[in-house]
Amino acid sequence: MSALQAAVERRGQQIFDLVDQNPESLFTKAGFYQRMMAFSMRDETFKVQMFRFVDVLASLRRSNDIVNHLREYFHGMDGVVPMLQTGLRAAGIFPWLTAFVLRRNVSGMARQFIAGRDGADVMKTLRKKRRQNIGFTVDLLGEAVVSEREADEYAARAMELLDTLSRETRGWTDPLGKNTELFPVVNLSLKISAFYSQMDPAAPEEAVEHLAAKLRPILRRAKEVGVFVNFDMESYAQKNGTLDLFKQLFTEPEFADWPHVGIVIQAYLRDAERDLKSLIAWGRKRGTRFAVRLVKGAYWDYEKIIAQQNGWICPVFLQKPESDANFEACTRILLDNESIVTAAFGSHNVRSIAYAMSYAEEKGIDKSRFEFQLLYGMAGPIKRALVELGYRVREYSPVGELLPGMSYLVRRLLENTSNEGFLRAKFSENLSAAELLRDPNELIKPEAIRSSREPASGHSRNGADRETPPGDSYENAPLINFVHPQNQQQMRSALQAARSQFGKKYPLVINGEKVTTGKWMPSVNPSAPNEIVGEVAEAGVPEAERAVKAASAAFEHWCRTSVEHRAQLLERVAAIMERRRFELAAVEVYEVGKAWDEADGDIREAIDFLLFYAAQMRILGRPKLTQHVMGEESYQHYWPRGVALVIAPWNFPIAILCGMVSAAIVTGNTVIMKPAEPSSVTGALLMELFEEAGVPRGVLNYLPGHGSVIGQHLVDHPEVVMIAFTGSREVGLRIWESAGKTRPGQRELKRVVCEMGGKNAIIVDSDADLDETIVDSIYSAFGYQGQKCSALSRMIVLEENYDRVIERLLAAAASLKVGNPENPGITVGPVIDERAYKRILEMIEAGKKEATLAYQAKDIPKDGYFIPPTIFTNVKPTARIAREEIFGPVLSVIKVRDLDEAVEVANSTDYALTAGFFSRSPANIHRMKAELEAGNVYINRSCTGAVVGRHPFGGFKMSGGGTKAGGGDYLLQFLIPRIVTENIMRHGFAPEETPRYRDEFLVRQPGTTVVEGAV
Amino acid sequence: MSALQAAVERRGQQIFDLVDQNPESLFTKAGFYQRMMAFSMRDETFKVQMFRFVDVLASLRRSNDIVNHLREYFHGMDGVVPMLQTGLRAAGIFPWLTAFVLRRNVSGMARQFIAGRDGADVMKTLRKKRRQNIGFTVDLLGEAVVSEREADEYAARAMELLDTLSRETRGWTDPLGKNTELFPVVNLSLKISAFYSQMDPAAPEEAVEHLAAKLRPILRRAKEVGVFVNFDMESYAQKNGTLDLFKQLFTEPEFADWPHVGIVIQAYLRDAERDLKSLIAWGRKRGTRFAVRLVKGAYWDYEKIIAQQNGWICPVFLQKPESDANFEACTRILLDNESIVTAAFGSHNVRSIAYAMSYAEEKGIDKSRFEFQLLYGMAGPIKRALVELGYRVREYSPVGELLPGMSYLVRRLLENTSNEGFLRAKFSENLSAAELLRDPNELIKPEAIRSSREPASGHSRNGADRETPPGDSYENAPLINFVHPQNQQQMRSALQAARSQFGKKYPLVINGEKVTTGKWMPSVNPSAPNEIVGEVAEAGVPEAERAVKAASAAFEHWCRTSVEHRAQLLERVAAIMERRRFELAAVEVYEVGKAWDEADGDIREAIDFLLFYAAQMRILGRPKLTQHVMGEESYQHYWPRGVALVIAPWNFPIAILCGMVSAAIVTGNTVIMKPAEPSSVTGALLMELFEEAGVPRGVLNYLPGHGSVIGQHLVDHPEVVMIAFTGSREVGLRIWESAGKTRPGQRELKRVVCEMGGKNAIIVDSDADLDETIVDSIYSAFGYQGQKCSALSRMIVLEENYDRVIERLLAAAASLKVGNPENPGITVGPVIDERAYKRILEMIEAGKKEATLAYQAKDIPKDGYFIPPTIFTNVKPTARIAREEIFGPVLSVIKVRDLDEAVEVANSTDYALTAGFFSRSPANIHRMKAELEAGNVYINRSCTGAVVGRHPFGGFKMSGGGTKAGGGDYLLQFLIPRIVTENIMRHGFAPEETPRYRDEFLVRQPGTTVVEGAV
Repeated sequence: MSALQAAVERRGQQIFDLVDQNPESLFTKAGFYQRMMAFSMRDETFKVQMFRFVDVLASLRRSNDIVNHLREYFHGMDGVVPMLQTGLRAAGIFPWLTAFVLRRNVSGMARQFIAGRDGADVMKTLRKKRRQNIGFTVDLLGEAVVSEREADEYAARAMELLDTLSRETRGWTDPLGKNTELFPVVNLSLKISAFYSQMDPAAPEEAVEHLAAKLRPILRRAKEVGVFVNFDMESYAQKNGTLDLFKQLFTEPEFADWPHVGIVIQAYLRDAERDLKSLIAWGRKRGTRFAVRLVKGAYWDYEKIIAQQNGWICPVFLQKPESDANFEACTRILLDNESIVTAAFGSHNVRSIAYAMSYAEEKGIDKSRFEFQLLYGMAGPIKRALVELGYRVREYSPVGELLPGMSYLVRRLLENTSNEGFLRAKFSENLSAAELLRDPNELIKPEAIRSSREPASGHSRNGADRETPPGDSYENAPLINFVHPQNQQQMRSALQAARSQFGKKYPLVINGEKVTTGKWMPSVNPSAPNEIVGEVAEAGVPEAERAVKAASAAFEHWCRTSVEHRAQLLERVAAIMERRRFELAAVEVYEVGKAWDEADGDIREAIDFLLFYAAQMRILGRPKLTQHVMGEESYQHYWPRGVALVIAPWNFPIAILCGMVSAAIVTGNTVIMKPAEPSSVTGALLMELFEEAGVPRGVLNYLPGHGSVIGQHLVDHPEVVMIAFTGSREVGLRIWESAGKTRPGQRELKRVVCEMGGKNAIIVDSDADLDETIVDSIYSAFGYQGQKCSALSRMIVLEENYDRVIERLLAAAASLKVGNPENPGITVGPVIDERAYKRILEMIEAGKKEATLAYQAKDIPKDGYFIPPTIFTNVKPTARIAREEIFGPVLSVIKVRDLDEAVEVANSTDYALTAGFFSRSPANIHRMKAELEAGNVYINRSCTGAVVGRHPFGGFKMSGGGTKAGGGDYLLQFLIPRIVTENIMRHGFAPEETPRYRDEFLVRQPGTTVVEGAV
Repeated sequence: MSALQAAVERRGQQIFDLVDQNPESLFTKAGFYQRMMAFSMRDETFKVQMFRFVDVLASLRRSNDIVNHLREYFHGMDGVVPMLQTGLRAAGIFPWLTAFVLRRNVSGMARQFIAGRDGADVMKTLRKKRRQNIGFTVDLLGEAVVSEREADEYAARAMELLDTLSRETRGWTDPLGKNTELFPVVNLSLKISAFYSQMDPAAPEEAVEHLAAKLRPILRRAKEVGVFVNFDMESYAQKNGTLDLFKQLFTEPEFADWPHVGIVIQAYLRDAERDLKSLIAWGRKRGTRFAVRLVKGAYWDYEKIIAQQNGWICPVFLQKPESDANFEACTRILLDNESIVTAAFGSHNVRSIAYAMSYAEEKGIDKSRFEFQLLYGMAGPIKRALVELGYRVREYSPVGELLPGMSYLVRRLLENTSNEGFLRAKFSENLSAAELLRDPNELIKPEAIRSSREPASGHSRNGADRETPPGDSYENAPLINFVHPQNQQQMRSALQAARSQFGKKYPLVINGEKVTTGKWMPSVNPSAPNEIVGEVAEAGVPEAERAVKAASAAFEHWCRTSVEHRAQLLERVAAIMERRRFELAAVEVYEVGKAWDEADGDIREAIDFLLFYAAQMRILGRPKLTQHVMGEESYQHYWPRGVALVIAPWNFPIAILCGMVSAAIVTGNTVIMKPAEPSSVTGALLMELFEEAGVPRGVLNYLPGHGSVIGQHLVDHPEVVMIAFTGSREVGLRIWESAGKTRPGQRELKRVVCEMGGKNAIIVDSDADLDETIVDSIYSAFGYQGQKCSALSRMIVLEENYDRVIERLLAAAASLKVGNPENPGITVGPVIDERAYKRILEMIEAGKKEATLAYQAKDIPKDGYFIPPTIFTNVKPTARIAREEIFGPVLSVIKVRDLDEAVEVANSTDYALTAGFFSRSPANIHRMKAELEAGNVYINRSCTGAVVGRHPFGGFKMSGGGTKAGGGDYLLQFLIPRIVTENIMRHGFAPEETPRYRDEFLVRQPGTTVVEGAV
């Protein structure tokens, strides 16, 4: 055993001895909170319901509401909580009493962790702690800041808190009686995200600039009155920005000599060590002392989930001991650099604490030159022990109301009940000191270490079990994470490169040949319509005929290729697309005005379609036995249909086009693709990718042109047997009608995959979490300028909550960044073209006559097709703006009495594409799941952003034919089912084994068919 | 141990001792046959391929064909047969030599079991056996008799054989030198099925009458010349008829005193004991001695397969020892009645033999008064032992060529390689005498005894494994087996009862109310158009509007019912249908002219649809998780569409109507059903069944009327969002076109399930098994008068085989029974109505101008819409009769050079519904599986008779929209897919468990929705 480990054990044992004299009350005394914790540790479902109930409680105003939620959450949990059923019944009889008791209990629970309601209130606590020789850092709790108004309010409150604290603590001295130059009495922790509502990881400079301006007054005052300021850390998305902000601000001459500033390093991050070293290097260069609070990190679940959902490399260590070990590594770095950085160790883990003590001792650093910071309301005996041992102890003391403190409370409850938490292990499960003091490096399971290069999928193989053939599994492509500077850099370079291609000419591709027609259609940048992104050859009827001929001829061999061959073609396209990802996204930014992340999302979705359809086709490609009887082999399989026409919209110029094209091709059909006019250049690039991947001549033909000329001609063509269309209702219905006619020489009934518009609603329940509601609704309505068929168009708000929702909504809209999406951090760019621009403005004018214009942005670019984000209130469900699809950044808000009216209004349109509901009532959620008329119903999240495989997309009513792009049934529409039945009995004799089948039965005609029977 | 068992063991041991002196050469000597048998016992796949190769060999004429087949069958079997690959390669170099060697070897194999080519040839064998004191019974091998000409030829050959044998054996004496009055020297076994090609189990009287007439001359001659005649038994379907025939013939005064007649009892049949007792009773009444040959039975595999395929109670015991025990029970009965019946024990099983010896001894019956009959070429040592022990031994000696003897040969090969066979156990696996002599009753596994009431399904639960919920499993309803007299009786009674309802009036049913309109449409019996089966109220536009209103209103609640509720409704209808099965079939016989089995098949299919769709809906009704990621629950489920219009044809008046209706209803839609005019009464009965099962008012509405009036009106109606149609191409395309139009007020895009006509081809390869080909083709072309959309219309024959096919085909057609299907045993009845009658006759006239009228029936009923079965040859693929759907009993034969031309012709029509291929070439079968353009491709079986769940049915091109009735995807067309996604993360906290879902999410709107969260 190393000397250090021996020291750690000795120190640890000392602490434990002291702790055991006064064990933690949480785990020993009875009481509401204690019982709830005990039940939660016993039963996972109870824990979920309990946390959720606590979460919603603060926002419930009426006793009946509280009792109803109580029942909905805890129905049927008698097994966990004795007498619960009786209690619930009693609650129904005395709702007021129940609500009162519950509120009091939950408030009590919150008070356990929240040191006071405000600056004045917290002083009671701080004084009491002072008597115990425990210092403080105060943190101002806050809801998610969804608008600049809210950010400003938060800043004002922070300033007020600072003043109160410095005023009320005048004359206080250091608890240890020394080192006041390192440790001012007043220590303020700042939640950086609360100072700016529009932080975009892709635009860190912009965020830093904005935040610096907001923070300077507070820092100035703090410096003036001798208050220590600490920048807290929240989720990974803000981490780089917060570090940049810290470095930039405290390098400014005004603050460069100020030593009383600190920042947090989260040891659970794989980046922690690198970040810490970079900070220290910065500090040495700056030449003034600063502080670092080293913590493990409190967003572990969240980071893991977000990374998995986006396909990102997980930023946190997946094994708890990895974080513990990293904490110790960072501890060493901090203490090794004690000359420039003051360390604060934020942990309740006695091993981590003892390690810091022992390493400091080894380095000869005095107890008084570093701190331990522990959370208010937790680990009391440990704090007492540390004080007794003569160490600095500072308590992290949150201040605020229950509602804004809810996230904090839930994090604490999670920590206390976590299976891997130190407190649970020590106080609830009574692990031995030896166990608890083990070197975390020994506890890491090497086989479970996930490389930092590996995405945090876990959902990989798409729910497939071990017996699923590898080719059937499917994993979504990761989104580009613009948190990483190298990704920002790549995007900037790609945009430059795309600009250099402006004006390029793109010919048609028919039967593998480049074809020009003498006519060129320019495609312009909607942010700057004088910029021509490219020019595409315009196809006419003769080219359309040529393309049909080519596709028909190619079908004869393409329908004979194996499923595997076709699936691999798609996978090659996906690989090329992944390689050329930034390039494609950059062209979209210019050609259709997408923001960076929206453009990347489109490419990601295209890759997903390619991989998903390849995997799905492998599954469909295996003939499936029908009901088995002896003496017979019978199986179902699928044949391609023939020549498919793909007519795509411009709003997801790669994703939707590629989705329809790849579905048609992988199923063995041949394709004529007509991209929308405004995104013809993007279409040409997709053609390029398929060519690069080796699509055979004629299998895919690129035919841009005018819908009224070649679109109509091809739709009516007897040799086109399949039409995959996504676009407007008007065009969709025309295609649907034309496809009904069977013309002379037509081989098959025409099949149409028809995806049309939407008039999507989100309902906001009276108990909705407004932080989520506002953020997600704003994104749903204004992301990509509202030009998504899934976009939110009607926000239906229950009157009980109406005023609060409107207030936050309008402020949030007012904070939106409108601008040229060539720059990062833009949420609202231009609409697609002049026609759209005029149409939307006309709708806004109409809206002004039938509703109240509650908000309209003023500061928008003058050039380009920019429409100001607009919100109407007092909208009647019958108003034109509540019925017609606008396809622009315009939101109508409708106030309703109750949920009955809400659902009636939501379902009252011609469309049924997406719908959303924000609520924390299990019964209401259940009801809306069953009632909302939409192909995609979203609960407590945005109503846009469907992910392939995860949210098969498409609607009904006038939104479409009930197809589901990115879903398991989608490819069936491109195929013909076929049954082959063989009597295998001869003269009364039949083999006994169950028959097996081979892939190539799908093959339509001979040629490449390998006849296995022949030698 | 009983005294009898002791005696059996003693006797048995005696035989074994003698046998072991001269063991069976099969299992000890080397040689082609011996090696083949050894490989077959070692490898199941080799056995299958070897038997199949042997089966096809005799019909191959060219050496190259033989070599090709050899390769196709044995490719890749090196693991089983050493040096096979080398051999196959050599075969390619010396095809002639290979073919020669193979033919010689297989002929040798056949000669092992076939005693001679004909009467003259067999005498050599018989003389040799005579020297060994072994008697004979000669059996004339024959192909399946597919026409009366073939039956007549067989009868002539039998007569000739009889003459030859009696002439050649003049002067022969009994081998034992006594009892010639019991055992004439010449013993002839007759294969009864070979004397009549049109035996129908439903019409035993007719078969008996016909067969009696055919057999009398032979019997007379036999009696005259002192020849013993034995009626052999074949499959169970002919058993009752053969027993009836035997009893009737030998009760006739001419034969009543003739003792030299015998019949076979098959101990593997559950009926055996009852049949034997009945025979003995008959014999006692007759007062003249007769004989019974007791065998185990040689069609065990076949009977099991047929029973399983048809859902019948398996007529054979499933455990081998059950048959063995039953053999002993029958042995006792025979010997107990020795005074009237002479016993012959036909077995190679020493235990069975020893049992008969011992029991006879116990009864004091002399050895000379019964016989043992063993097969030629098998069990030689046992025969020798029996002779040595002084018992009568007679050898069953087949006579004939290899081709007609193939079935017999395969049965023998099977017997020799059977896992359960005595010979394999004794001579190959060397079981001990004690083992082999055990009482079979002790070997029966009680837990494995299948009740005789239990269908031989095995395919039950539709391939479901143990984890499948019970409701998801599906089993086809059994067909009525008209072999059983009680079923014949029930059908006759039902026909009488149906007749008594003639002229009844059937009102419309709208919203649960009976509605009359003042107009009545009569529905007549096409066999006798002056008979009015019933009259239905004729709906007009006002009734159609009322029905739409009722269905729309009913949808509001029906869409909210649970899947389970709807599935159970279908299951109740199925139960009622099963109960009223004969009644419904009888009405079909009168209203649409179906033969008994065709009518029953239609009801059976309807029951299948009900049960299958109920099971499928339960599966679809469970929301299905999409790709799972943490923090989110996302699932796909399905909603109903709305009001569905069902337009059905008259040719499967219950099945297709019920299939479409039940699919629409179980998916939650409401239905207006318009049956075809000629089957409106049947439609009314279906309505009755649904009402009896409790379908709520308005959910199903019965609306007969004229297509041009209400059909068109409803198809165009904006509130009808779904049309399920089966019928003609003309009407189908009109509906498809109208449904393309989206009309004002229309809620959804109209979805059409469209099944249209066919022009189905069967290709006959040069190596096809003609027995199967002719029988199945005749049935496919002329069953139900060719009025099935799946019916065979074009027979495409390779020229190499053409003459032989045509010869047998025309003769088979000429043997078809045309008549009023009210009577049993009719294959061809009337066509549906006068319009069809005239149209088909017109097509025949057209055919006469463009092809050769090769056959047309003459003797057909004068009244009613009877069209003579008609065959055209020399039909060009471009001829009208080769292109247009005829929908009547007309077959066009097209001669082609080779398979390339065959497939080109087969695929050259506008349709792609069914197609067939008869071949024994694995490579050709493989190719046709991949190339035939048809929704249902059938290999070596008829191209009609698709079974629900087993052969999902429907075509493409102008045959339909690629739907598959009775298939797993079918219900999707009646549904709208919907995704519900819930963000389950709150403040970074999400439950870890995988979410589970409940059924009621499918429910469209509240009301009946039980909110589980509420107390």
